[in-house]
Amino acid sequence: MAELTHFNDQQRAKMVDVTSKAVTARVAKATGQIKMHPETLARIHAGTMKKGDVLAVAQVAGIMAAKQTSNLIPMCHLIPLTGVDIYFSDNQQDTITAVVTVKTKHVTGVEIEALNACQISLLTIYDMCKAIDRGMLIDQVHLVEKSGGKSGHFVYQDET
Amino acid sequence: MAELTHFNDQQRAKMVDVTSKAVTARVAKATGQIKMHPETLARIHAGTMKKGDVLAVAQVAGIMAAKQTSNLIPMCHLIPLTGVDIYFSDNQQDTITAVVTVKTKHVTGVEIEALNACQISLLTIYDMCKAIDRGMLIDQVHLVEKSGGKSGHFVYQDET
Amino acid sequence: MAELTHFNDQQRAKMVDVTSKAVTARVAKATGQIKMHPETLARIHAGTMKKGDVLAVAQVAGIMAAKQTSNLIPMCHLIPLTGVDIYFSDNQQDTITAVVTVKTKHVTGVEIEALNACQISLLTIYDMCKAIDRGMLIDQVHLVEKSGGKSGHFVYQDET
Amino acid sequence: MAELTHFNDQQRAKMVDVTSKAVTARVAKATGQIKMHPETLARIHAGTMKKGDVLAVAQVAGIMAAKQTSNLIPMCHLIPLTGVDIYFSDNQQDTITAVVTVKTKHVTGVEIEALNACQISLLTIYDMCKAIDRGMLIDQVHLVEKSGGKSGHFVYQDET
Amino acid sequence: MAELTHFNDQQRAKMVDVTSKAVTARVAKATGQIKMHPETLARIHAGTMKKGDVLAVAQVAGIMAAKQTSNLIPMCHLIPLTGVDIYFSDNQQDTITAVVTVKTKHVTGVEIEALNACQISLLTIYDMCKAIDRGMLIDQVHLVEKSGGKSGHFVYQDET
Amino acid sequence: MAELTHFNDQQRAKMVDVTSKAVTARVAKATGQIKMHPETLARIHAGTMKKGDVLAVAQVAGIMAAKQTSNLIPMCHLIPLTGVDIYFSDNQQDTITAVVTVKTKHVTGVEIEALNACQISLLTIYDMCKAIDRGMLIDQVHLVEKSGGKSGHFVYQDET
Repeated sequence: MAELTHFNDQQRAKMVDVTSKAVTARVAKATGQIKMHPETLARIHAGTMKKGDVLAVAQVAGIMAAKQTSNLIPMCHLIPLTGVDIYFSDNQQDTITAVVTVKTKHVTGVEIEALNACQISLLTIYDMCKAIDRGMLIDQVHLVEKSGGKSGHFVYQDET
Repeated sequence: MAELTHFNDQQRAKMVDVTSKAVTARVAKATGQIKMHPETLARIHAGTMKKGDVLAVAQVAGIMAAKQTSNLIPMCHLIPLTGVDIYFSDNQQDTITAVVTVKTKHVTGVEIEALNACQISLLTIYDMCKAIDRGMLIDQVHLVEKSGGKSGHFVYQDET
Repeated sequence: MAELTHFNDQQRAKMVDVTSKAVTARVAKATGQIKMHPETLARIHAGTMKKGDVLAVAQVAGIMAAKQTSNLIPMCHLIPLTGVDIYFSDNQQDTITAVVTVKTKHVTGVEIEALNACQISLLTIYDMCKAIDRGMLIDQVHLVEKSGGKSGHFVYQDET
Repeated sequence: MAELTHFNDQQRAKMVDVTSKAVTARVAKATGQIKMHPETLARIHAGTMKKGDVLAVAQVAGIMAAKQTSNLIPMCHLIPLTGVDIYFSDNQQDTITAVVTVKTKHVTGVEIEALNACQISLLTIYDMCKAIDRGMLIDQVHLVEKSGGKSGHFVYQDET
Repeated sequence: MAELTHFNDQQRAKMVDVTSKAVTARVAKATGQIKMHPETLARIHAGTMKKGDVLAVAQVAGIMAAKQTSNLIPMCHLIPLTGVDIYFSDNQQDTITAVVTVKTKHVTGVEIEALNACQISLLTIYDMCKAIDRGMLIDQVHLVEKSGGKSGHFVYQDET
Repeated sequence: MAELTHFNDQQRAKMVDVTSKAVTARVAKATGQIKMHPETLARIHAGTMKKGDVLAVAQVAGIMAAKQTSNLIPMCHLIPLTGVDIYFSDNQQDTITAVVTVKTKHVTGVEIEALNACQISLLTIYDMCKAIDRGMLIDQVHLVEKSGGKSGHFVYQDET
């Protein structure tokens, strides 16, 4: 099994040296979901249609969070992102799913940026609705797919 | 059912007015877990014992993230936190669990701070280990308990 | 005429000492406007009704900017805000007006926070629409009113 | 009329994909002004000559704000800036004008960075002088000129 | 000898719980110096008198850095500062000394804020002059004095 | 002697224009030390071996600070860093020395990033140990070496 690459020979964390890696176009897609009371989802639906739009706020929060990733994840490189988009869907019952796509043209990948944007958009939904539902659950957050870079194409295998 | 409180009468999001709420001591505890290949957990264990300590980095990341919460979650108030602590445990097989406790003495609660610290500490584990395991899954992120403030004591009810 | 208070006796800027000022409830209201091509406003209207909502993004940006004020304005104290709200209106022709209200219970006022939120929400409108209209003009940004604190109630006098 | 480009097909905001745009040298120049009591301007003049220099602080604030633009404007890409400069002039009566020039060599333009730096430098003047003049007015903030990139050269047309 | 207080019983770092500590007025004063070529100091002197003022920029940088301390020092609590001031002096030969005073009315002290502001103001001098002198040395950075809080009055003892 | 490059012809600070400088691989190494009571160092040693690891926290803080440099040092360009590493050593008596190496492939150097990471890692040690030793001294902070870029190779000459 490969070594963990984030440690120096004093066994302390370092930001991995990517100076000589190639600049390539990279895409990462991540997903996650938030489970809630059916009435909470109904309320979000109602707002999206004719009142305050919870998901519009969650969308902005997720996109802005993508840009903050290297300030939050200690060993993560700052990467000028070239695109971020988020789609929300729901099961018409009790669960909203976010799918985030992040793009760059840089020397390292943007998996962490996509996962961070996903988590923050879901947590924003929690924040906007917590006055009526504190028992919401954020779940199933994982990388869906990534391409570009030396490690090549990755597709998540659901093993459930 | 109560109204969503985060919208003004133009149906756009606002930061809720808490000017006249009482300052009280408040505690929130949140949890979440990350599932991985058994070999990834074995590698983290090995590092904790004698090499680079993934969880030490995740601990610092989570605590620093708690302080960034109001910069990430759009309608969240800035709250001077009076304490943050994180405990990690694992099932000796394939899952690490984080439990975060956040404290303040302020006019609003710190649930979102605890959840944010939890998510970021788990995502840091992902980042530190992604070179050997990109299929990790962040799961079961929820509030465990909160106390203090007008809405009183909350304890999460697992409905699975 | 009173002295400028932000300079020390080396004639360099300082953050004014407010240690012994009283904690009181304070409110500041600021306004500003952005002028654009009539077609740009028509497009924003259309989006608000049935498509992408430019003003929803501007709303979130303004509220988040209010919380960043002390990181942007060098001599400004960090103030935990207790409420932020923004209303947009337009003249049905070529101008959108933002009105921002910021509240706190603290030792200094929140005029700068309100003005900053106002400017950033207007600049976000510019950013969202610049692909179709680069000649937009941000104008008439000023404090409308403030209350609380030793300097008392202030109401803007339009001298035009 | 062209479509607003910042929305996805769920009609929610996205950060526009610029992955395949060309890296070119880009320059943007923005301006804005702040109107004040003649005595306030006299005081700033006096300070610049022999005491605390309000404009030196405003200069630093504007330049630092340019670097924060993508953290403030939600759909704005992070752009490593290659130069920022600000010039102040005044009408010897009641108005200070700022002109900001921002440069980069990147895939998108820096208009928003120049406008943001301009607004923040003017708001810093407000902050430094508000103890003696709360009725100041920030006005006439607009792009002056930009060059580089696919959309080519733009020069502001004053239509007053 | 007392225990290090920043570790939990998993031996990982925590943000110490200060929920029940008393709010008191607190002051911390820190100092530090930067040694340079005599010609570099002469150049800074010249600029302060009639040209670009290196120390004005260093002053602003130090004050703004004081406000960023809890974002930089992992276990440091966010503290709303009530005053920050910096004085520079020099030995007329090759060394500039900064003295920073930070004040708050809060449950923890501001020593780290004063030291951080001091270091950043000195590093800003380095940055502004590095084109002519890369061999500058930052030295003798320490707390001078602090008062307020349970641990009482501290005065630095020079043991050289 | 060369001109200070950070001032415009109004004698105010600017961010120097580097638009046409060449992208090259650049490395900077900085060092600094913190002197303390022998018992404080003994306590840090003890923790590193079997308890809370002060240096692990200082390591993370220094690396994260490197990424914040352009937000702290006013005229410093944002530089996407390609690697950061920190080594600690001590004299087995009363002094810990940090050596930081920062790398990039960009149009400007990373000396300031290395010095900033060094200072913040040392200040983090101070923060973690201040409950038992407030008299610690940060000292001997300087650039060790830098390479890459037009100004070429620099090696620090100790003139003591």
